[in-house]
Amino acid sequence: MDDVLTIAGEDFASRLLLGTGGVPSLEVLEKAIVGSATQLVTIALRRVEASAGTPLLEVVERSKVKLLPNTAGCMTAREAVLTAKLAREAFETDWVKLEVIGDEHTLLPDPVELLDAAERLVADGFTVLPYTNDDPITARRLADIGCAAVMPLGSPIGSGLGIRNPHNISLIREAVQVPVILDAGVGTASDAALAMELGCDAVLLASAVTRARDPELMAIAMRDAIRAGRAAYRAGRIPRRWHAEASTQIAGFPEL
Amino acid sequence: MDDVLTIAGEDFASRLLLGTGGVPSLEVLEKAIVGSATQLVTIALRRVEASAGTPLLEVVERSKVKLLPNTAGCMTAREAVLTAKLAREAFETDWVKLEVIGDEHTLLPDPVELLDAAERLVADGFTVLPYTNDDPITARRLADIGCAAVMPLGSPIGSGLGIRNPHNISLIREAVQVPVILDAGVGTASDAALAMELGCDAVLLASAVTRARDPELMAIAMRDAIRAGRAAYRAGRIPRRWHAEASTQIAGFPEL
Amino acid sequence: MDDVLTIAGEDFASRLLLGTGGVPSLEVLEKAIVGSATQLVTIALRRVEASAGTPLLEVVERSKVKLLPNTAGCMTAREAVLTAKLAREAFETDWVKLEVIGDEHTLLPDPVELLDAAERLVADGFTVLPYTNDDPITARRLADIGCAAVMPLGSPIGSGLGIRNPHNISLIREAVQVPVILDAGVGTASDAALAMELGCDAVLLASAVTRARDPELMAIAMRDAIRAGRAAYRAGRIPRRWHAEASTQIAGFPEL
Amino acid sequence: MDDVLTIAGEDFASRLLLGTGGVPSLEVLEKAIVGSATQLVTIALRRVEASAGTPLLEVVERSKVKLLPNTAGCMTAREAVLTAKLAREAFETDWVKLEVIGDEHTLLPDPVELLDAAERLVADGFTVLPYTNDDPITARRLADIGCAAVMPLGSPIGSGLGIRNPHNISLIREAVQVPVILDAGVGTASDAALAMELGCDAVLLASAVTRARDPELMAIAMRDAIRAGRAAYRAGRIPRRWHAEASTQIAGFPEL
Repeated sequence: MDDVLTIAGEDFASRLLLGTGGVPSLEVLEKAIVGSATQLVTIALRRVEASAGTPLLEVVERSKVKLLPNTAGCMTAREAVLTAKLAREAFETDWVKLEVIGDEHTLLPDPVELLDAAERLVADGFTVLPYTNDDPITARRLADIGCAAVMPLGSPIGSGLGIRNPHNISLIREAVQVPVILDAGVGTASDAALAMELGCDAVLLASAVTRARDPELMAIAMRDAIRAGRAAYRAGRIPRRWHAEASTQIAGFPEL
Repeated sequence: MDDVLTIAGEDFASRLLLGTGGVPSLEVLEKAIVGSATQLVTIALRRVEASAGTPLLEVVERSKVKLLPNTAGCMTAREAVLTAKLAREAFETDWVKLEVIGDEHTLLPDPVELLDAAERLVADGFTVLPYTNDDPITARRLADIGCAAVMPLGSPIGSGLGIRNPHNISLIREAVQVPVILDAGVGTASDAALAMELGCDAVLLASAVTRARDPELMAIAMRDAIRAGRAAYRAGRIPRRWHAEASTQIAGFPEL
Repeated sequence: MDDVLTIAGEDFASRLLLGTGGVPSLEVLEKAIVGSATQLVTIALRRVEASAGTPLLEVVERSKVKLLPNTAGCMTAREAVLTAKLAREAFETDWVKLEVIGDEHTLLPDPVELLDAAERLVADGFTVLPYTNDDPITARRLADIGCAAVMPLGSPIGSGLGIRNPHNISLIREAVQVPVILDAGVGTASDAALAMELGCDAVLLASAVTRARDPELMAIAMRDAIRAGRAAYRAGRIPRRWHAEASTQIAGFPEL
Repeated sequence: MDDVLTIAGEDFASRLLLGTGGVPSLEVLEKAIVGSATQLVTIALRRVEASAGTPLLEVVERSKVKLLPNTAGCMTAREAVLTAKLAREAFETDWVKLEVIGDEHTLLPDPVELLDAAERLVADGFTVLPYTNDDPITARRLADIGCAAVMPLGSPIGSGLGIRNPHNISLIREAVQVPVILDAGVGTASDAALAMELGCDAVLLASAVTRARDPELMAIAMRDAIRAGRAAYRAGRIPRRWHAEASTQIAGFPEL
């Protein structure tokens, strides 16, 4: 396999990470996992606790995917660190998708609390994948702290607004060496393809699949879109041109 | 097979049409055909004549794809009709991709000459697939004349500017019953996926593949992107929302 | 005055043309005329007839603006030519804003009937300002026929969607020598400014003003926006740059 | 005057703040100040020191505008606080435009150092106007700390890329009570108008004016564009509609 995604030394053939938020049933989850060909599924500790946990976990385990606990719902570094530690106990993994939200209205990450939590968790031996806004400076700080990847948003969680600021995603790609995983905002297949064309290493999706009219078919669509976007990125797209035949090139970066 | 493309009564499993403009060698063409999984390849009569024709045709025939002659380079209805007739003789098919260009600078179609040529060719028994601008009224006129499909542009040929006016493509999708095939302007995979999400039935590509740094890999990218966009269209995307959790929906159509 | 708009030999200090569609009262119309500082107001013959005409005309005459009759509502060349002739009688002007609509749903112009009507009216001595789609080839044909200006749409009448395809407006600006007047689609001030930055010579507005919450204030906003956009166009904007300090320029045309 | 801008209890008739970066000569600066009708001009302490200061300051003082010292070039909170204090001494004002940059390549603000510096300066009695990224959570934190306004970027300084993420600017407008002043990224008049339509209270410009081909004319353009955008915001724009006559509205916020 010639184009694997490597996070913290671990290889993945799939570049699609699946969230479980909004999933209407375990049956749908299982179909979404299979359809998307994901190898990394993120689950909120709270959700597992709330649902007694067992059946949801069983689905994930049966699917042979790696479990990535997240700290969804936390609003302070303290709370997020505590949740991460509980998740480490519960799931026997030191990987964590770190979410620290600043606002229940927009669910946007709070950069101050996020950086604080990331620093503490890295120091405590966690493999930290932080959900962050699309600010290149914050992303670089997260990478400098020792995070295993950075996960900038395209737009607010569940909004389906796609990638609002492709320019920033490109600047993040330039600014860090760790994998860049687009997280939040993807609404449809072309959004996911665009993320990959901008140089992202992977895409995390949840409600775009779980809340689609046909989640299984949308999972397949996302699988193909991410493969397509990755291949297009590697294949080297044609430049944009102002006229059909003009020799002057228009800016060669994806979708300003 | 549950989701075939039907044009003039003929079924195709692939929704990708491949153009041969800009192809650097026959070897690359063959790889692009295989990689894209296309079943319909368009060739300019002029190009075939210019290159003595035989080797290019051999590649197409060996690939078992259907040949779709085009009238590229024609600037009047008269010239296009004549070219179509010569192509019918040469290739033994009454299918024709009708191109009548208004301008060598932009290569944009001339709606007046195009409608005139389309009318004459339909009357003469051709199966006409016209390359047109993205005007919904012109598209409806072409469908009313009896064209087998309409092929609106996303942006000028070879520009790689993607779909400049998604609104118009959606309006065309509403305005006609025949297949809508996006033709011209696709630069990368997400453009092709978006075309399908807007309701197009297929996408025609040439230079996006033939002029990519790695044409074979880009052909694969386009194959997957078109499948992804089609699946996303059928799966029913989530609505756009202004806030992460707001109940008010943002307009539910793709990409304003 | 160093920057006048000249149409068919006549000079205008204002680059804002005002439509009367959607106007809720004569009082509002008068305020909109004064606020916008327009010198050219377009009125549908049908509307004048329907409202017995006199009061609407009185307002226009009192304002000392030039009256530009239009053929709104016509769907064939024949109907539009007849309407233009009746308007010439009624208003004693050979200027006409030519509208030939292809569809009551989108109100998009029908290029075939439009070109036919334009040709006949020019031959009959009219000063023809045709409302057209944003296709550069059709615009050039209208100019070649002898139209005094071309009036491409930004988006459908009354949609408020702004300029959907700035690329095409720029291509029209390159393609013709006569004034280019953006007509239809403007929703707010920045849309009007953008039209001027793209090189348009003037902007026609109706419902953006007449249907705004405060029509008089919006008329003032549009007056200032059009002046601003024109000044910016003449002042020569800075190029777009990918990085804050990078020397490489991003495409120097307005808003792709 | 019925629509003044109030910052920290002080009223301004003009909603345009002018930066002096990139200004080619004092003569041009003076013309830009007059043309733009600005009442608030920002100057880097470093620049004043470097140029011996006197002539630049004389121009500003002669223009009767308020001087707003800035901390351009600072990369840490410590450095910015020190610079602010020196500026307070030098210019006898406790107003400061706070800039703490994370990167010389993009000149993007560093949210961590910025928040730290803002907190210290507010505690020390400064009236702080911080240049920040477009993250709504960071903006709210700055307002909560006691900043007198927030100054989110549209895009990187000097890039001329306009407002890359209008959605975020709208979210910031919802999130804070203090004035929102768009700072950085404006390239042309329509960008400035859009900022105001999104609900910004003012716009700060520098290189869009100082580096335009005709700085004086561009200053006038910006003055009019900001007035136009403000008036349009207050006048209440028409909703966006999918079809010309359809009753269904498209999302009523400016430019997604």
